[in-house]
Amino acid sequence: MTDDFEGVFPILATPFDEGGNIDLESLERTVRFMEDIEVDGLTVLGVAGEVNRMVDGERERVIRTVIEVAAGRIPIIVGTSYSGTAPTRALSQMAESLGADGVMVAPSREPVPNEGRIFEFFQQVAEGISISIVVQDHPASTQVHMSVPLMLKLIKEIPQVACIKEEDVPTAPKISALLAGMSERKIPILTGLGALYGYFDLSRGSKGFMTGFGFPEVMQAIAHAARQERFDKVREVYHRFLPLIVYEQQPGVAIRKEVLRLRGLIAHNKVRHPGASIDEATSLQLRGLLNDVFGDVDITKPVEVG
Amino acid sequence: MTDDFEGVFPILATPFDEGGNIDLESLERTVRFMEDIEVDGLTVLGVAGEVNRMVDGERERVIRTVIEVAAGRIPIIVGTSYSGTAPTRALSQMAESLGADGVMVAPSREPVPNEGRIFEFFQQVAEGISISIVVQDHPASTQVHMSVPLMLKLIKEIPQVACIKEEDVPTAPKISALLAGMSERKIPILTGLGALYGYFDLSRGSKGFMTGFGFPEVMQAIAHAARQERFDKVREVYHRFLPLIVYEQQPGVAIRKEVLRLRGLIAHNKVRHPGASIDEATSLQLRGLLNDVFGDVDITKPVEVG
Amino acid sequence: MTDDFEGVFPILATPFDEGGNIDLESLERTVRFMEDIEVDGLTVLGVAGEVNRMVDGERERVIRTVIEVAAGRIPIIVGTSYSGTAPTRALSQMAESLGADGVMVAPSREPVPNEGRIFEFFQQVAEGISISIVVQDHPASTQVHMSVPLMLKLIKEIPQVACIKEEDVPTAPKISALLAGMSERKIPILTGLGALYGYFDLSRGSKGFMTGFGFPEVMQAIAHAARQERFDKVREVYHRFLPLIVYEQQPGVAIRKEVLRLRGLIAHNKVRHPGASIDEATSLQLRGLLNDVFGDVDITKPVEVG
Amino acid sequence: MTDDFEGVFPILATPFDEGGNIDLESLERTVRFMEDIEVDGLTVLGVAGEVNRMVDGERERVIRTVIEVAAGRIPIIVGTSYSGTAPTRALSQMAESLGADGVMVAPSREPVPNEGRIFEFFQQVAEGISISIVVQDHPASTQVHMSVPLMLKLIKEIPQVACIKEEDVPTAPKISALLAGMSERKIPILTGLGALYGYFDLSRGSKGFMTGFGFPEVMQAIAHAARQERFDKVREVYHRFLPLIVYEQQPGVAIRKEVLRLRGLIAHNKVRHPGASIDEATSLQLRGLLNDVFGDVDITKPVEVG
Repeated sequence: MTDDFEGVFPILATPFDEGGNIDLESLERTVRFMEDIEVDGLTVLGVAGEVNRMVDGERERVIRTVIEVAAGRIPIIVGTSYSGTAPTRALSQMAESLGADGVMVAPSREPVPNEGRIFEFFQQVAEGISISIVVQDHPASTQVHMSVPLMLKLIKEIPQVACIKEEDVPTAPKISALLAGMSERKIPILTGLGALYGYFDLSRGSKGFMTGFGFPEVMQAIAHAARQERFDKVREVYHRFLPLIVYEQQPGVAIRKEVLRLRGLIAHNKVRHPGASIDEATSLQLRGLLNDVFGDVDITKPVEVG
Repeated sequence: MTDDFEGVFPILATPFDEGGNIDLESLERTVRFMEDIEVDGLTVLGVAGEVNRMVDGERERVIRTVIEVAAGRIPIIVGTSYSGTAPTRALSQMAESLGADGVMVAPSREPVPNEGRIFEFFQQVAEGISISIVVQDHPASTQVHMSVPLMLKLIKEIPQVACIKEEDVPTAPKISALLAGMSERKIPILTGLGALYGYFDLSRGSKGFMTGFGFPEVMQAIAHAARQERFDKVREVYHRFLPLIVYEQQPGVAIRKEVLRLRGLIAHNKVRHPGASIDEATSLQLRGLLNDVFGDVDITKPVEVG
Repeated sequence: MTDDFEGVFPILATPFDEGGNIDLESLERTVRFMEDIEVDGLTVLGVAGEVNRMVDGERERVIRTVIEVAAGRIPIIVGTSYSGTAPTRALSQMAESLGADGVMVAPSREPVPNEGRIFEFFQQVAEGISISIVVQDHPASTQVHMSVPLMLKLIKEIPQVACIKEEDVPTAPKISALLAGMSERKIPILTGLGALYGYFDLSRGSKGFMTGFGFPEVMQAIAHAARQERFDKVREVYHRFLPLIVYEQQPGVAIRKEVLRLRGLIAHNKVRHPGASIDEATSLQLRGLLNDVFGDVDITKPVEVG
Repeated sequence: MTDDFEGVFPILATPFDEGGNIDLESLERTVRFMEDIEVDGLTVLGVAGEVNRMVDGERERVIRTVIEVAAGRIPIIVGTSYSGTAPTRALSQMAESLGADGVMVAPSREPVPNEGRIFEFFQQVAEGISISIVVQDHPASTQVHMSVPLMLKLIKEIPQVACIKEEDVPTAPKISALLAGMSERKIPILTGLGALYGYFDLSRGSKGFMTGFGFPEVMQAIAHAARQERFDKVREVYHRFLPLIVYEQQPGVAIRKEVLRLRGLIAHNKVRHPGASIDEATSLQLRGLLNDVFGDVDITKPVEVG
């Protein structure tokens, strides 16, 4: 169990081969790369990991592989959101039994978004495990709008709730409201949404990133500068990479997977159906953009973000 | 593989014990009851089977149990809808490998309801299996509106599509349009929605029922009369049981599970969270209604529907 | 202003001619019919009145006509729900200035369903008018799920809130919870949804109907029997007309408009685009059903519901 | 009627005073400013103009004021989308009768997103007017996903369809697909979404902007450079202003209205309920951002974008 949610916890894409099968070799390579650049933790099986296109056995293989490679050197957080409470708890228990350090859980819309039911949902998941819970607040995928009072109640009454991943746009005022409301027990808030509002969120008190932007080194530079309260630096780095952040954060994971492929981390840019892999014109546009942003830098190596 | 989709294919509730674990004994008892009353097939793991509140391992146990008890005497259809194409195919393959005769599949809303993608979805599922596919058209749960031309294309071009379960309200005109449009290859349409529009659907050409109404004997009487083109009889039976049909068809499965418990088929009326089991007042109202409809009849026995 | 919300308050269809223009003559005829059968009030411009297919000037003409014909003899309730708060208030003020006795208002989904915002919404509407407010709880059209505590707060703190129109399925437990929770100030609850759950709602304490079922005489018979606590009679009448209630309550207003046309109340069954008027086969099925239910009775006259 | 949809057609905010009433003086000032900087046209009553929070009479006042001030010197496009077809046509006719040059129309989700119905919707609106139609493709607000074939059919068969406002993310591939598919009749595509994907869209063939970003001068500089095929310049300007574009494009119009207030165009930053005006912390953050981007430049004057 970890409760130190500060820094950068990249959400890993799940690599597939051309046939659509999980490519464990690419996954291992990605984990090693993340270890090399010294991220603060890893998150697997998020929406951006195409978790809703995988059966449970595949989830298990992903968790097992990541944990074996990370071998206790990096905290591993596992996305376990599911439409019902029992499967969310069961998947969380599987994650714990495989050695995960925490789970990332978003509330379910099923059957009706009701504050009482959402609280019970997190409570029942917490009762089934002894590792940390990251509460993901992402209405775009859940269609559930959690109020600030509900989230503060989760923080106050469920000790395992150790982090908020805040993705309810506009994020900045919600971050401020949450931080202002944490009177008794303070937990960190992390930024998602592909780092789209990184500068703004971190200047409001977000402690870092839990998202899948293809250059975690950039998120590290931003988080590092924010920790030192050098917000001019935060802004400068954010601004420098913003066109890429904006482009990659478009719906779907096709662009991100192509970035990861171009970086040499994954062997194929395959996206599982009904998603679609990147088309030719978008790929061309992406390469132009990478060239604009990185010039001659070899992006298959860890990138120095000055 | 079965392609004789005519008659009554009840959708089984998944019984849970008080602790929320699958109650296989109740499941076995239910299957035996269905065999006794000679249903034409059984459907497991539909929405009404709380399939979205179960992990894959639990799904497997349910399929295995039902197939063992039915022992080849009743065709078994397994709901395998999932948000992505690959898991839908994988779950369908699991069903086939366990001995199922067909799968029931609804299109996924993920990522965007697009006619081309929906066709590909069914095509890719069909390619992975050799058993029949029941296409479930139920916008209330899928949020996908399939057009009549798309559905006719599925029927024409995917030979394994052997049945339509039509639940897009108003159902009657869509049933008429589908039947009118099946020029080359005709497949049966079955009625869902708790038999709510039974009389109207069957008089338009529906061949029977694939739904979870707690008294399949009633659906059998209706389907039997329809097969004999005795629509006065269809109407009379439908009308007689309509208050119960309407009451049971309210959202959620709490009322139906209490009906099944009162019938002695399942030991507990437990509904998995975030659903809720029946409350006291609703239970009381239900009993009054059952008394209105059945009087002194012992509903723990197969009911004679004169 | 009226605060006596007990009995039957039919929601009027808005009649259009073949060209899609408002047919005021049919509207007048309908109002006179309702006056003849002595309904307790009339509701115009609900969802079933195709209000979302009309500009403000048309709304005004409908209100004006109905109020002129009713001439103070029947309370008139006007649906004024709109996506923003200001237009809802402005339309409510228009209704009041034209002589309406109350407004029917559902919460808006825009921009985010938030309990605080929904309370403010009703508060701001109430501040702009001095007539009664019927709070419509109909998630199927609003996509807003109001909790019982929120609704009790509306009842307690906004004196103009004089009635709840409860259409959040399952309705019966919510009616019970609302009635149990009204400690200081008790207001009536009315039943909607085309009377679909009439028997169940009224036996839980609903005081009558505010919905558009084409035979208000049936709703009157049910409400009358309920007021006398003759629930056997309630059940008998409900049961007798249930097939028609179920058939008419399918999505859209095409069937209802054809019922009203067959009753001689409106001249055309025209439904405004993108809705569709009734098709031939559905019309035929409807006539069969009316024949089943009414036999030789002349439905162009007020129907005796024994 | 205009059919020259190339360049920048800002979508105007609707200014309100502290009491929430339309502030026509601010509106006039804004129009004059836009005239001064020589925009190619003006768009009023879009989603960003809070049109869904205004009654028809208010819409009329806005159109009348803008047309009076513009006095035929700038083409005026009016947003007239409504849930039903008849009101959309009626509002479009009102716009034409007041002197508008075109209407902007998005398809309605009501009652069911069906390609045939959407085509009829645009056809019926077109039949009622003789000015141009801009088809707005914005699933985020309409919940309707128009396929490329449907949009090409609209372009081919409805001559008044003179422009596409493309806001279905990811926009770039859809722009490419639309342009590739316009075989017989070619019409311009404009970029919306607060210019968020400006560089990418224009390098794919978008002819400019129809959106409400608070610095239309920036969009002009981008569109001008694109017209000259100086895409390095397009990229440079886009990149320079991207943090502001990203920040302003968050849901709601509070930030944009504060930008317009700080620019001296509107007197108040009031947003109509249930929207909320900008909060203190967001306002502070916005000012910091404006300072980062503009330094000492006086933003109350037209800004030179070098």
